[in-house]
Amino acid sequence: MSFALIKTDSASHARRGRLVTRHGIVETPIFMPVGTQGTVKAMAPDELRAVGAQIILANTYHLFLRPGPDVINHFGGLHRFMGWHHPILTDSGGFQVFSLSKLRRITEDGVHFNNHIDGSPCFLSPEISMEIQTALGSDIAMAFDECPPYPCELEYASVSLDRTLRWAQRCRTWGTDQPEKTRPLVFGIVQGAIYRDLREKSARTLVEMDFDGYAIGGVSVGEPEPEMMRAIDHSVPFLPAERPRYAMGLGTPSQIVEMVARGIDMFDCVLPTRLARNGTAFTRFGTLNLKNNPYRLDERPIEEECACATCRTFTRGYIRHLIKAQEILGLRLITMHNLYFYLDLTRQIRNSLDNGTFPRFRERFVADYIKHEAT
Amino acid sequence: MSFALIKTDSASHARRGRLVTRHGIVETPIFMPVGTQGTVKAMAPDELRAVGAQIILANTYHLFLRPGPDVINHFGGLHRFMGWHHPILTDSGGFQVFSLSKLRRITEDGVHFNNHIDGSPCFLSPEISMEIQTALGSDIAMAFDECPPYPCELEYASVSLDRTLRWAQRCRTWGTDQPEKTRPLVFGIVQGAIYRDLREKSARTLVEMDFDGYAIGGVSVGEPEPEMMRAIDHSVPFLPAERPRYAMGLGTPSQIVEMVARGIDMFDCVLPTRLARNGTAFTRFGTLNLKNNPYRLDERPIEEECACATCRTFTRGYIRHLIKAQEILGLRLITMHNLYFYLDLTRQIRNSLDNGTFPRFRERFVADYIKHEAT
Repeated sequence: MSFALIKTDSASHARRGRLVTRHGIVETPIFMPVGTQGTVKAMAPDELRAVGAQIILANTYHLFLRPGPDVINHFGGLHRFMGWHHPILTDSGGFQVFSLSKLRRITEDGVHFNNHIDGSPCFLSPEISMEIQTALGSDIAMAFDECPPYPCELEYASVSLDRTLRWAQRCRTWGTDQPEKTRPLVFGIVQGAIYRDLREKSARTLVEMDFDGYAIGGVSVGEPEPEMMRAIDHSVPFLPAERPRYAMGLGTPSQIVEMVARGIDMFDCVLPTRLARNGTAFTRFGTLNLKNNPYRLDERPIEEECACATCRTFTRGYIRHLIKAQEILGLRLITMHNLYFYLDLTRQIRNSLDNGTFPRFRERFVADYIKHEAT
Repeated sequence: MSFALIKTDSASHARRGRLVTRHGIVETPIFMPVGTQGTVKAMAPDELRAVGAQIILANTYHLFLRPGPDVINHFGGLHRFMGWHHPILTDSGGFQVFSLSKLRRITEDGVHFNNHIDGSPCFLSPEISMEIQTALGSDIAMAFDECPPYPCELEYASVSLDRTLRWAQRCRTWGTDQPEKTRPLVFGIVQGAIYRDLREKSARTLVEMDFDGYAIGGVSVGEPEPEMMRAIDHSVPFLPAERPRYAMGLGTPSQIVEMVARGIDMFDCVLPTRLARNGTAFTRFGTLNLKNNPYRLDERPIEEECACATCRTFTRGYIRHLIKAQEILGLRLITMHNLYFYLDLTRQIRNSLDNGTFPRFRERFVADYIKHEAT
């Protein structure tokens, strides 16, 4: 077994776990920084370790287009290519095909699209996605799926889900004739939009296929937060306790805490890196936009008591200057802090689960974060 | 005395020296990375130390406009503001006023101009420049000068030089009533365009004013290389051996070696940081443009045998991918290598001067660099 459940919270569905991959162990709950193009934006691999990253996510769609799996394979896989020798989860490319490219046609076989870089026609299918993810040397591959938009009519959601489930079966079957040591773990993705029955059907059908883990997709696609929480609540009960669960593309710090309470183990989100580039820093008491004038003469670090490299050395006033002057060091320093913040949050969650204090941690954190964020 | 001459080369005018500033010792010949806006582009202060930086340059004009000397003074000076606790040389702002802003009027008093950020009217004079450089906490302040363009008629060069010399006297006199420990070292700047007599007059007049060091300005302003070398040769003989000499805004690696042979001790140049952002890396055998297709599958580091953090970990192929994908890590890695290259070059120059092997080093380095750069 690649996943061990260490402890469960008695007051919620929160779990403390440990996932074993070919490139090392991942302690869960965990946040995975997003390394879309074979680099977590603005960060070097040693800095990722310094902020506490255990596993990162890479985007199959982007790497498929540039530099291409042949190039990465030539360098001995993505780990060696980018100098990150710890676990990597790859998404399937499905989400980006539907969100970034100009879609041409979905068939039973796969998806024809024009890519967003040079507009040339491309094709991805469950088998091609698995092949690319394996060529990248992924530790955890995701099944190729269609991620329907929000909102989505019941009829389309249902047709799409059935096809996604057939694609999931093809991903599950793919590569079983290959040597085990080159094969990634494979996670299925629960879809079904906002429809309770579809979520249940999706989860139950995937579980029958016996994946190494289960993701919940089609969340964080523009729906209101209560809708997102419901999609999780409608999926989790049908997933086996002894497999890891991953909520894709989530979320804000308080959402992550709430998702842990609902039984989620793994998260990825572009917020810490994307908002950093806009001058926004995360703190326990909500976000700060460091471009704002009040920080001009502010001699404090982004967050008092934060132990990250940014907060140990630099003031809000200096970082504000760098962001205003469009200096790269500014977004580097905020990116570093924000990733540390997210990773430290999951570390604190793990500690509280180890100590049996998660309910109290959850209550306090969410109250502090939401109260200040709203003001 | 703030400058000690340790050794001189018998076959050229090259010198091995040591400059003492309030924030530490600078071994010369030395290259100074350019930190225009209170940051060396894309680099953190600890990384600057790791690549071997002893002293950096900051631009008075840029910091005067943004964030303003009041802000930097509030944070206890530029060293504390940016977290760099080693020597800083500030330029006077003169060069940028004439090259970046919309000039309005030069008077005996100073220069009226519209700044390049919001176009608002500004004024800089010798006294204001010295005041700002002192407020920044500069270790070495430069006299406020006019840097004439290339080409420049004799008549204008002469009028401009006379005014610049009167401004130099005002810079030399400024602040002599202030406590010595808050005062920077002050360097005069030799001007005179391409005119031998003006260069001699400029150098002789400045030396009478007894500056702590002497810079050669008005070079690297678009003139052909032989013209640049002549400007140096026409200035250096009139400068005292016991004061440091600084060639402003220079140069390529082979130009630096040649300038050392002509008796120059200090250099600054944007080439290593600016070209990095365009994908160009320096090597002993000329530059590489890493965007080029042949590097696509190249598993070598930028430079074999280079000990920088980039070359110890990353391949040309990966860096090429990052640059093509416009990822910040790409320009960070090349910037790191390029600065290491320039700083290691001056370190090798110092070693060869210590060992008495500079003539051989010079011959080999320049031959290797120029031969390959030309192909």
